[in-house]
Amino acid sequence: MIMPILAVEAMLQGDGALPVNVKFFFEGQEEIGSPEIPEFVRKHKDLLACDFALSSDGGQFSETEGEILIARKGLCGVQIDVQGPKSDVHSGTSGGAVQNPIYALAYILSSMRSPDGKIAIEGFFDSVVPLTDDDRASIAAVPFDDDEYKKQLGVDELFGEPGYTTLERAWARPTLDLNGIWGGFQGEGSKTVLPAKAGAKVTCRLVPNQEPEEIMSLIEAHVAQHTPNGAKVTVTRQPGTARPYSIPKDHPANRLAHAVLEEIYGKPPYYVRIGGTIAVTGILLDILGIYTVSFGFGLNDECFHAPDEFFRISSWDRGQLAYCRLFECLGERGLEG
Amino acid sequence: MIMPILAVEAMLQGDGALPVNVKFFFEGQEEIGSPEIPEFVRKHKDLLACDFALSSDGGQFSETEGEILIARKGLCGVQIDVQGPKSDVHSGTSGGAVQNPIYALAYILSSMRSPDGKIAIEGFFDSVVPLTDDDRASIAAVPFDDDEYKKQLGVDELFGEPGYTTLERAWARPTLDLNGIWGGFQGEGSKTVLPAKAGAKVTCRLVPNQEPEEIMSLIEAHVAQHTPNGAKVTVTRQPGTARPYSIPKDHPANRLAHAVLEEIYGKPPYYVRIGGTIAVTGILLDILGIYTVSFGFGLNDECFHAPDEFFRISSWDRGQLAYCRLFECLGERGLEG
Repeated sequence: MIMPILAVEAMLQGDGALPVNVKFFFEGQEEIGSPEIPEFVRKHKDLLACDFALSSDGGQFSETEGEILIARKGLCGVQIDVQGPKSDVHSGTSGGAVQNPIYALAYILSSMRSPDGKIAIEGFFDSVVPLTDDDRASIAAVPFDDDEYKKQLGVDELFGEPGYTTLERAWARPTLDLNGIWGGFQGEGSKTVLPAKAGAKVTCRLVPNQEPEEIMSLIEAHVAQHTPNGAKVTVTRQPGTARPYSIPKDHPANRLAHAVLEEIYGKPPYYVRIGGTIAVTGILLDILGIYTVSFGFGLNDECFHAPDEFFRISSWDRGQLAYCRLFECLGERGLEG
Repeated sequence: MIMPILAVEAMLQGDGALPVNVKFFFEGQEEIGSPEIPEFVRKHKDLLACDFALSSDGGQFSETEGEILIARKGLCGVQIDVQGPKSDVHSGTSGGAVQNPIYALAYILSSMRSPDGKIAIEGFFDSVVPLTDDDRASIAAVPFDDDEYKKQLGVDELFGEPGYTTLERAWARPTLDLNGIWGGFQGEGSKTVLPAKAGAKVTCRLVPNQEPEEIMSLIEAHVAQHTPNGAKVTVTRQPGTARPYSIPKDHPANRLAHAVLEEIYGKPPYYVRIGGTIAVTGILLDILGIYTVSFGFGLNDECFHAPDEFFRISSWDRGQLAYCRLFECLGERGLEG
């Protein structure tokens, strides 16, 4: 956000004027799923009216290669709570006589995917727009090394939905992850308890045209169908859903960004996607009918959202230059130029 | 323990002598699985030599009905740890690309039982001595109300291995319980993490002739066979195993206890079993070749091992009387009388 502002400030100080009209929209709820942004945008349609949005959330592919972000996944999640006996009981006294809530939970969660990694919730893929040959070619054109990624994650093998490359799965296929689980005795050693409760958190990353509300309904139906006898199960929808977002690769604003990044790096940018979610892009598209062009200047090793986060001074200069050039080109050629 | 001591003291004060020789063995490790008792018993075989052991661990069936405990289950347990990526990762970045440890754990745990409640570990039942018609009749002779038990546990239905009554399952069939599970985010709200680790604790209650070491080997083999791709799984055997224990219903010392309890309550005692484990009974049988007769005077509502534990004064009197009578009868008639 700061770099486009500095770019505008620099142009105003230098030329005394901007080549295009610019409106700044400060979105302070991104990390909590933007719960109040839809209402704000709906209320201020006129104020926010524009041709497209520009987001600096994103990164460079490397210090010498640019990238344009063309898709972000949506998000929805539920918490599953299983209730067994009204209090923890002794497994020697009641074991075998009554359902074990951890078993019931494990059975439900296990049923959500097949062992080969395919999500097994009925209807989950019904509204997924299949990847086109062009999509797959565009993803395959992005350099990516499975072995390097394994090393980075510290795993012996990558794993996921059969029939897709690692980047296709991470960038462009819907996923279901178990974010947390709990129940019974978690301390050192042994305690032969049959616990009263167990619970888990589940989130899905969604791709076009999956709708968060619909996916949560499918999960609820799946859990109801897969609840073992003797367990009481509650599914609670979590706030902070987001619809998946994508912008056509050849959108006029993307073509403009492409030209700018090619000029700056001396080579064309990559078109990348990300599994993460920025709800506001979908909100602006839904309510204002405008797309968001995303390119930024972070780099993967900069510990974002983590201790010792940093940003390179060279990226700082490069970013301001890029945003200035975008405004200049837009002023010279217009959006459709 | 205290009541047989008081019984002996009362007889010594009254008669100045005991009708039989009595040795006291104070077992202070029962709650931690008696890890040092086998070595002690092996070292002191001569000191401990006797005709049978008497344990006051147990209860009355009610204030007006006695019971003799003829079987206790054995115990073994493992901890299962699943390692995914080397640290927690963002489910939007790495979701779909790498195995989720909670899913892998849920899959493994779920595979250990079939949804109808039967343990699905290969070979688990191979060494189980089937219940005889006499065993089943003896268990069925004990008054037990499923509806009352449901109310006590706060569940809508009881659940377990098909083909057996509730008491048969709880008293005389082996069980597998999940005692605890953990992994990822357990707080309020949502955190879209793909966790690095997940773990669970599993214990089995064993019946004759299941051996703890053998069952743990079967669990290890099962886990190895059911580990999904992309997950690293470690199974750690937990200390505190115990072999299952049972005493023939018509053992001479049980016949003696039967006569004493019939005299005291005015009706014959029930023969009961329990899923809980007292390792020392199996240890004494293995090393000294002696059985342990078990009858006690606790009642189910006395909050044992819990806050506000109490014991009835009437049971206190009844217990001392019963143990005195056992020693007297033994002195009069001998064990085989």
